[in-house]
Amino acid sequence: MKIILIGAGNLATQLALALQKKGLAPACIYSRTDESARRLSERLHHTDYTTDLAQLPTDGDLYIFAVKDSVLPDLLSCMPANDGLWVHTAGSVDREVFRPYAARYGVFYPMQTFSKEREVGFDNIPFFIEANSEDDTRLLHDLAARLSGKVYRADSEQRKYLHLAAVFACNFTNHLYTLCDRILQEHGLPFEAMLPLIRETADKAADMPPFDAQTGPAIRYDRNIIAKQEALLDDPTLREIYSLMSRSIHETHNPE
Amino acid sequence: MKIILIGAGNLATQLALALQKKGLAPACIYSRTDESARRLSERLHHTDYTTDLAQLPTDGDLYIFAVKDSVLPDLLSCMPANDGLWVHTAGSVDREVFRPYAARYGVFYPMQTFSKEREVGFDNIPFFIEANSEDDTRLLHDLAARLSGKVYRADSEQRKYLHLAAVFACNFTNHLYTLCDRILQEHGLPFEAMLPLIRETADKAADMPPFDAQTGPAIRYDRNIIAKQEALLDDPTLREIYSLMSRSIHETHNPE
Repeated sequence: MKIILIGAGNLATQLALALQKKGLAPACIYSRTDESARRLSERLHHTDYTTDLAQLPTDGDLYIFAVKDSVLPDLLSCMPANDGLWVHTAGSVDREVFRPYAARYGVFYPMQTFSKEREVGFDNIPFFIEANSEDDTRLLHDLAARLSGKVYRADSEQRKYLHLAAVFACNFTNHLYTLCDRILQEHGLPFEAMLPLIRETADKAADMPPFDAQTGPAIRYDRNIIAKQEALLDDPTLREIYSLMSRSIHETHNPE
Repeated sequence: MKIILIGAGNLATQLALALQKKGLAPACIYSRTDESARRLSERLHHTDYTTDLAQLPTDGDLYIFAVKDSVLPDLLSCMPANDGLWVHTAGSVDREVFRPYAARYGVFYPMQTFSKEREVGFDNIPFFIEANSEDDTRLLHDLAARLSGKVYRADSEQRKYLHLAAVFACNFTNHLYTLCDRILQEHGLPFEAMLPLIRETADKAADMPPFDAQTGPAIRYDRNIIAKQEALLDDPTLREIYSLMSRSIHETHNPE
């Protein structure tokens, strides 16, 4: 399978390395800047690269667009036409973004949080795939299954909610860690002391529904503790978060 | 060391079992109800138990009150006087709650989320201790160090903020998992697909400051995605949480 990779950011890099491990290294990569294209090419045993979309091979089997959501439409409008299968890797972008440009298209979305500093093993990353034909859906399913043990089909409507759910479970959760860190720092306490609790809270989610795992003053709606804790927070946004989250926990566990 | 344990709930049970493993099984336990006292006694090789505070031995070295915050004051007022060191295990209760009743007192707070269904290894649970004398602080430090590799001193003022920080990192985080689960269920998606992301988000916190690990649309303040995602949420409380958390992430990462 001849794979063409468009993008050289975090996700593109990690994906390219994972594909390479499976003997599926991209045949050519594109990046807007020469430097990042060259850097990724070097990590891929000097695969071809270009900074000019017009130079991309048109005989690829699969074109993977692993770029920022916002630049995708512009890129697509500059792509040379071809008969390959075009996919993007985004949580929030509809499959139909490809319709004006390609006959065969789909989505190849690995749901994980990628950082430059951490290498991520794809084995355990869920892939959500879809395509505009059953044949291509199967092709993407087989490819994803070579990288990961967890492959799901999800249409664009489901994927929107998936991405939204991930914002709650990952982005917002990490922000709560940040706020926790701030509160601790302000009172001379080490964030590392919080790590076992963070780990256990995450591990529990694998063991029982999070609804059943809920603990703390808000589920009991212990107004005494809630009021005392609220009063400790000087920062108005922090206090708002404390109050809203407590109310939401209470509403969730005591529906009218 | 003769330990007397007041309480037979989750924390009391797990603490008693951990102490027993280190050859420090409580000499006597108290619970309000005969059934829970007997049940815990059976797990502790039939240690003595009572449902009458007046029957508790008065020659204990250490009295551990592992009970709900709200019942502690009533219990204390019914305790037989003695010369032992009295400690509670609560995040949010001031050390001085003991002052009217005991000459030696302190706090022995293991910061973790305890559930009936999961056994928790204490080795990795941070203990926060304090006492009203340096000798007793050392005694509690040594005892905690036999159970856990992580022992910190924290005064009651610090402990309040510690508990508050834990509400953010554990209770609120778990509630975000619950909301995530709800969104997924409503759209025919399995919660288990979210577990690798939840795990990675928690693992990252051990690797880099959560401030540096922040990803997602809110840190970029990608108004396009934020508005689209907000519009997906029918539930007003969920929408409020989405909007407030996004604003807070933005404020945190783009201070004026």
